Amino acid sequence: MAESCLFCKIVAGEIPSTKVFEDDRVLAFMDINPINTGHLLVIPKKHAATIFEIDPDDLTAVMLIVQKLALAQKSALDMEGLNIIQSNGRVANQIIDHLHVHLIPRWHEDGFPATDWKLVPGNMDEIAATAEKIKANR
Amino acid sequence: MAESCLFCKIVAGEIPSTKVFEDDRVLAFMDINPINTGHLLVIPKKHAATIFEIDPDDLTAVMLIVQKLALAQKSALDMEGLNIIQSNGRVANQIIDHLHVHLIPRWHEDGFPATDWKLVPGNMDEIAATAEKIKANR
Repeated sequence: MAESCLFCKIVAGEIPSTKVFEDDRVLAFMDINPINTGHLLVIPKKHAATIFEIDPDDLTAVMLIVQKLALAQKSALDMEGLNIIQSNGRVANQIIDHLHVHLIPRWHEDGFPATDWKLVPGNMDEIAATAEKIKANR
Repeated sequence: MAESCLFCKIVAGEIPSTKVFEDDRVLAFMDINPINTGHLLVIPKKHAATIFEIDPDDLTAVMLIVQKLALAQKSALDMEGLNIIQSNGRVANQIIDHLHVHLIPRWHEDGFPATDWKLVPGNMDEIAATAEKIKANR
Protein backbone atom coordinates (compact mmCIF):
# COMPACT_ATOMS: atom_id res chain seq x y z
CA MET A 1 0.00 0.00 0.00
CA ALA A 2 1.29 3.41 -1.01
CA GLU A 3 0.66 6.06 1.62
CA SER A 4 -1.54 8.91 0.51
CA CYS A 5 -2.75 6.91 -2.54
CA LEU A 6 -6.49 7.38 -2.84
CA PHE A 7 -7.04 4.05 -4.58
CA CYS A 8 -4.93 2.16 -2.02
CA LYS A 9 -7.23 3.64 0.61
CA ILE A 10 -10.23 2.40 -1.35
CA VAL A 11 -8.63 -1.06 -1.54
CA ALA A 12 -8.03 -0.97 2.22
CA GLY A 13 -11.63 0.10 2.87
CA GLU A 14 -10.54 3.38 4.43
CA ILE A 15 -12.47 5.29 1.77
CA PRO A 16 -15.84 3.94 0.64
CA SER A 17 -16.54 2.88 -2.94
CA THR A 18 -19.35 1.30 -4.88
CA LYS A 19 -17.76 -2.05 -5.69
CA VAL A 20 -18.79 -4.20 -8.63
CA PHE A 21 -16.07 -6.86 -8.33
CA GLU A 22 -13.40 -7.93 -5.89
CA ASP A 23 -10.97 -10.83 -5.61
CA ASP A 24 -7.47 -11.28 -4.18
CA ARG A 25 -5.74 -9.24 -6.87
CA VAL A 26 -8.33 -6.97 -8.43
CA LEU A 27 -10.94 -4.42 -7.36
CA ALA A 28 -13.54 -2.78 -9.60
CA PHE A 29 -15.74 0.10 -8.52
CA MET A 30 -17.92 2.80 -10.00
CA ASP A 31 -16.29 6.07 -11.06
CA ILE A 32 -17.83 8.82 -8.90
CA ASN A 33 -17.32 11.32 -11.75
CA PRO A 34 -18.92 9.26 -14.49
CA ILE A 35 -18.69 10.30 -18.13
CA ASN A 36 -21.68 8.08 -18.86
CA THR A 37 -23.97 5.70 -17.01
CA GLY A 38 -22.04 2.61 -15.93
CA HIS A 39 -18.55 4.21 -16.04
CA LEU A 40 -16.37 2.04 -13.80
CA LEU A 41 -12.72 1.50 -12.91
CA VAL A 42 -10.72 -1.71 -12.61
CA ILE A 43 -7.51 -1.59 -10.55
CA PRO A 44 -4.89 -3.95 -9.17
CA LYS A 45 -5.02 -4.17 -5.38
CA LYS A 46 -1.24 -4.04 -5.20
CA HIS A 47 -0.05 -0.50 -5.79
CA ALA A 48 1.46 0.22 -9.18
CA ALA A 49 1.40 3.72 -10.58
CA THR A 50 1.31 2.94 -14.30
CA ILE A 51 1.58 0.33 -17.05
CA PHE A 52 5.34 0.75 -16.75
CA GLU A 53 5.44 -0.60 -13.20
CA ILE A 54 2.60 -3.09 -12.81
CA ASP A 55 3.44 -6.75 -12.21
CA PRO A 56 2.52 -8.62 -15.41
CA ASP A 57 0.43 -11.12 -13.44
CA ASP A 58 -1.56 -8.25 -11.94
CA LEU A 59 -2.00 -6.73 -15.39
CA THR A 60 -3.34 -10.03 -16.68
CA ALA A 61 -5.71 -10.36 -13.73
CA VAL A 62 -6.95 -6.80 -14.23
CA MET A 63 -7.60 -7.29 -17.94
CA LEU A 64 -9.54 -10.53 -17.46
CA ILE A 65 -11.82 -8.66 -15.05
CA VAL A 66 -12.06 -5.80 -17.55
CA GLN A 67 -13.42 -8.32 -20.06
CA LYS A 68 -15.76 -9.90 -17.50
CA LEU A 69 -17.21 -6.52 -16.53
CA ALA A 70 -17.40 -5.32 -20.13
CA LEU A 71 -19.66 -8.30 -20.79
CA ALA A 72 -21.66 -7.53 -17.64
CA GLN A 73 -22.10 -3.90 -18.72
CA LYS A 74 -23.22 -5.08 -22.16
CA SER A 75 -25.86 -7.34 -20.61
CA ALA A 76 -26.97 -4.85 -17.98
CA LEU A 77 -26.99 -1.49 -19.72
CA ASP A 78 -28.19 -1.91 -23.30
CA MET A 79 -25.11 0.06 -24.33
CA GLU A 80 -24.07 0.57 -27.95
CA GLY A 81 -20.31 0.61 -27.49
CA LEU A 82 -17.51 0.73 -24.95
CA ASN A 83 -14.31 2.72 -24.61
CA ILE A 84 -11.55 1.17 -22.52
CA ILE A 85 -8.99 3.78 -21.54
CA GLN A 86 -5.87 3.50 -19.39
CA SER A 87 -3.84 6.69 -18.98
CA ASN A 88 -0.26 7.00 -17.75
CA GLY A 89 1.24 10.23 -16.54
CA ARG A 90 -0.23 13.63 -15.74
CA VAL A 91 0.28 14.76 -19.35
CA ALA A 92 -1.91 11.83 -20.41
CA ASN A 93 -4.58 13.02 -17.93
CA GLN A 94 -3.90 10.41 -15.27
CA ILE A 95 -5.07 12.04 -12.03
CA ILE A 96 -4.68 9.21 -9.50
CA ASP A 97 -1.24 7.59 -9.57
CA HIS A 98 -2.49 4.04 -9.16
CA LEU A 99 -3.07 2.18 -12.40
CA HIS A 100 -6.74 2.13 -13.37
CA VAL A 101 -8.64 1.03 -16.43
CA HIS A 102 -11.72 3.07 -17.35
CA LEU A 103 -14.68 1.20 -18.82
CA ILE A 104 -16.91 3.86 -20.38
CA PRO A 105 -20.18 2.68 -21.94
CA ARG A 106 -21.19 4.58 -25.06
CA TRP A 107 -24.44 5.54 -26.72
CA HIS A 108 -25.17 7.50 -29.86
CA GLU A 109 -25.26 11.23 -29.26
CA ASP A 110 -23.84 10.93 -25.75
CA GLY A 111 -21.52 13.80 -26.49
CA PHE A 112 -18.32 12.08 -25.28
CA PRO A 113 -15.69 13.22 -27.78
CA ALA A 114 -12.71 11.46 -26.23
CA THR A 115 -11.92 8.92 -28.91
CA ASP A 116 -13.22 10.78 -31.93
CA TRP A 117 -9.95 11.89 -33.45
CA LYS A 118 -9.34 12.78 -37.06
CA LEU A 119 -7.51 10.27 -39.28
CA VAL A 120 -4.61 12.16 -40.81
CA PRO A 121 -2.02 10.09 -42.72
CA GLY A 122 1.47 10.30 -41.21
CA ASN A 123 4.83 10.59 -42.95
CA MET A 124 5.79 6.97 -43.67
CA ASP A 125 9.54 7.63 -43.48
CA GLU A 126 9.18 9.17 -40.04
CA ILE A 127 6.90 6.31 -38.96
CA ALA A 128 9.46 3.73 -40.12
CA ALA A 129 12.29 5.54 -38.33
CA THR A 130 10.28 5.65 -35.09
CA ALA A 131 9.44 1.95 -35.44
CA GLU A 132 13.14 1.15 -35.64
CA LYS A 133 13.78 3.09 -32.42
CA ILE A 134 10.97 1.23 -30.63
CA LYS A 135 12.18 -2.15 -31.90
CA ALA A 136 15.71 -1.36 -30.71
CA ASN A 137 14.33 -0.78 -27.20
CA ARG A 138 12.09 -3.83 -26.88
CA MET B 1 -9.20 -15.00 -40.68
CA ALA B 2 -12.24 -12.87 -41.34
CA GLU B 3 -12.71 -12.04 -44.99
CA SER B 4 -12.58 -8.36 -45.82
CA CYS B 5 -10.98 -7.56 -42.43
CA LEU B 6 -8.17 -5.09 -43.00
CA PHE B 7 -6.21 -6.21 -39.94
CA CYS B 8 -6.57 -9.91 -40.82
CA LYS B 9 -5.03 -8.98 -44.17
CA ILE B 10 -2.18 -7.26 -42.37
CA VAL B 11 -1.69 -10.38 -40.22
CA ALA B 12 -1.65 -12.51 -43.38
CA GLY B 13 0.87 -10.20 -45.04
CA GLU B 14 -1.54 -9.30 -47.82
CA ILE B 15 -1.36 -5.65 -46.82
CA PRO B 16 1.99 -4.22 -45.71
CA SER B 17 2.56 -2.78 -42.26
CA THR B 18 5.43 -1.38 -40.25
CA LYS B 19 5.75 -4.10 -37.64
CA VAL B 20 7.29 -3.56 -34.23
CA PHE B 21 6.50 -6.97 -32.70
CA GLU B 22 5.24 -10.35 -33.83
CA ASP B 23 4.82 -13.76 -32.24
CA ASP B 24 2.37 -16.65 -32.66
CA ARG B 25 -0.58 -14.83 -31.13
CA VAL B 26 0.12 -11.12 -31.36
CA LEU B 27 1.09 -8.52 -33.94
CA ALA B 28 2.04 -4.90 -33.29
CA PHE B 29 2.50 -2.30 -35.99
CA MET B 30 2.63 1.44 -36.41
CA ASP B 31 -0.64 3.33 -36.90
CA ILE B 32 -0.48 4.96 -40.35
CA ASN B 33 -2.69 7.80 -39.10
CA PRO B 34 -0.69 8.63 -35.99
CA ILE B 35 -2.00 11.05 -33.38
CA ASN B 36 1.54 11.48 -32.11
CA THR B 37 5.01 10.15 -32.86
CA GLY B 38 5.21 6.47 -31.93
CA HIS B 39 1.45 5.75 -32.08
CA LEU B 40 1.15 2.01 -32.55
CA LEU B 41 -1.46 -0.75 -32.45
CA VAL B 42 -1.36 -4.16 -30.80
CA ILE B 43 -3.76 -6.82 -32.10
CA PRO B 44 -4.48 -10.53 -31.68
CA LYS B 45 -3.64 -12.50 -34.82
CA LYS B 46 -6.82 -14.52 -34.44
CA HIS B 47 -9.79 -12.44 -35.53
CA ALA B 48 -11.97 -11.05 -32.77
CA ALA B 49 -14.01 -7.93 -33.33
CA THR B 50 -14.12 -6.55 -29.79
CA ILE B 51 -13.38 -7.09 -26.11
CA PHE B 52 -16.69 -8.96 -25.96
CA GLU B 53 -15.49 -11.71 -28.30
CA ILE B 54 -11.73 -12.10 -27.83
CA ASP B 55 -10.39 -15.35 -26.38
CA PRO B 56 -9.15 -14.54 -22.86
CA ASP B 57 -5.76 -16.10 -23.62
CA ASP B 58 -5.39 -13.85 -26.65
CA LEU B 59 -6.38 -10.83 -24.55
CA THR B 60 -3.72 -11.75 -22.00
CA ALA B 61 -1.10 -12.17 -24.72
CA VAL B 62 -2.05 -8.84 -26.28
CA MET B 63 -1.83 -6.97 -22.98
CA LEU B 64 1.58 -8.38 -22.07
CA ILE B 65 2.87 -7.10 -25.42
CA VAL B 66 1.14 -3.77 -24.77
CA GLN B 67 3.22 -3.50 -21.59
CA LYS B 68 6.41 -4.61 -23.34
CA LEU B 69 5.98 -2.03 -26.09
CA ALA B 70 4.93 0.71 -23.66
CA LEU B 71 8.28 0.21 -21.96
CA ALA B 72 10.04 0.21 -25.35
CA GLN B 73 8.30 3.46 -26.31
CA LYS B 74 9.31 4.97 -22.97
CA SER B 75 12.95 4.07 -23.57
CA ALA B 76 12.96 5.05 -27.24
CA LEU B 77 10.93 8.22 -27.44
CA ASP B 78 11.57 10.35 -24.37
CA MET B 79 7.82 10.58 -23.99
CA GLU B 80 6.09 12.19 -21.01
CA GLY B 81 3.01 9.98 -20.82
CA LEU B 82 1.02 7.30 -22.61
CA ASN B 83 -2.64 6.78 -23.38
CA ILE B 84 -3.78 3.21 -23.93
CA ILE B 85 -7.16 3.15 -25.68
CA GLN B 86 -9.25 0.22 -26.87
CA SER B 87 -12.56 1.10 -28.51
CA ASN B 88 -15.50 -1.21 -29.12
CA GLY B 89 -18.28 -0.41 -31.55
CA ARG B 90 -18.77 2.30 -34.15
CA VAL B 91 -20.35 4.60 -31.57
CA ALA B 92 -17.12 4.31 -29.54
CA ASN B 93 -15.15 5.29 -32.66
CA GLN B 94 -13.90 1.81 -33.53
CA ILE B 95 -13.28 1.92 -37.28
CA ILE B 96 -11.69 -1.50 -37.95
CA ASP B 97 -13.73 -4.38 -36.55
CA HIS B 98 -10.70 -6.36 -35.33
CA LEU B 99 -9.77 -5.69 -31.72
CA HIS B 100 -6.84 -3.27 -31.44
CA VAL B 101 -5.17 -1.48 -28.58
CA HIS B 102 -3.83 2.00 -29.31
CA LEU B 103 -0.60 3.05 -27.60
CA ILE B 104 -0.41 6.82 -27.96
CA PRO B 105 2.68 8.55 -26.55
CA ARG B 106 2.01 11.95 -25.01
CA TRP B 107 3.96 15.15 -24.59
CA HIS B 108 3.00 18.46 -23.02
CA GLU B 109 1.19 20.75 -25.41
CA ASP B 110 0.72 18.03 -28.03
CA GLY B 111 -2.88 19.14 -28.43
CA PHE B 112 -4.40 15.64 -28.11
CA PRO B 113 -7.60 16.25 -26.13
CA ALA B 114 -8.90 12.70 -26.08
CA THR B 115 -8.60 11.88 -22.42
CA ASP B 116 -9.01 15.36 -20.98
CA TRP B 117 -12.55 15.13 -19.74
CA LYS B 118 -14.12 17.24 -17.00
CA LEU B 119 -14.65 15.66 -13.58
CA VAL B 120 -18.32 16.16 -12.76
CA PRO B 121 -19.66 14.33 -9.71
CA GLY B 122 -22.42 11.86 -10.52
CA ASN B 123 -25.67 11.16 -8.66
CA MET B 124 -24.64 8.53 -6.09
CA ASP B 125 -28.08 6.90 -5.98
CA GLU B 126 -28.06 6.41 -9.73
CA ILE B 127 -24.47 5.12 -9.59
CA ALA B 128 -25.41 2.59 -6.90
CA ALA B 129 -28.44 1.42 -8.89
CA THR B 130 -26.31 0.95 -12.01
CA ALA B 131 -23.70 -0.95 -10.00
CA GLU B 132 -26.39 -3.37 -8.86
CA LYS B 133 -27.43 -4.01 -12.46
CA ILE B 134 -23.83 -4.68 -13.49
CA LYS B 135 -23.25 -7.00 -10.53
CA ALA B 136 -26.40 -8.92 -11.39
CA ASN B 137 -25.01 -9.56 -14.88
CA ARG B 138 -21.47 -10.61 -13.96
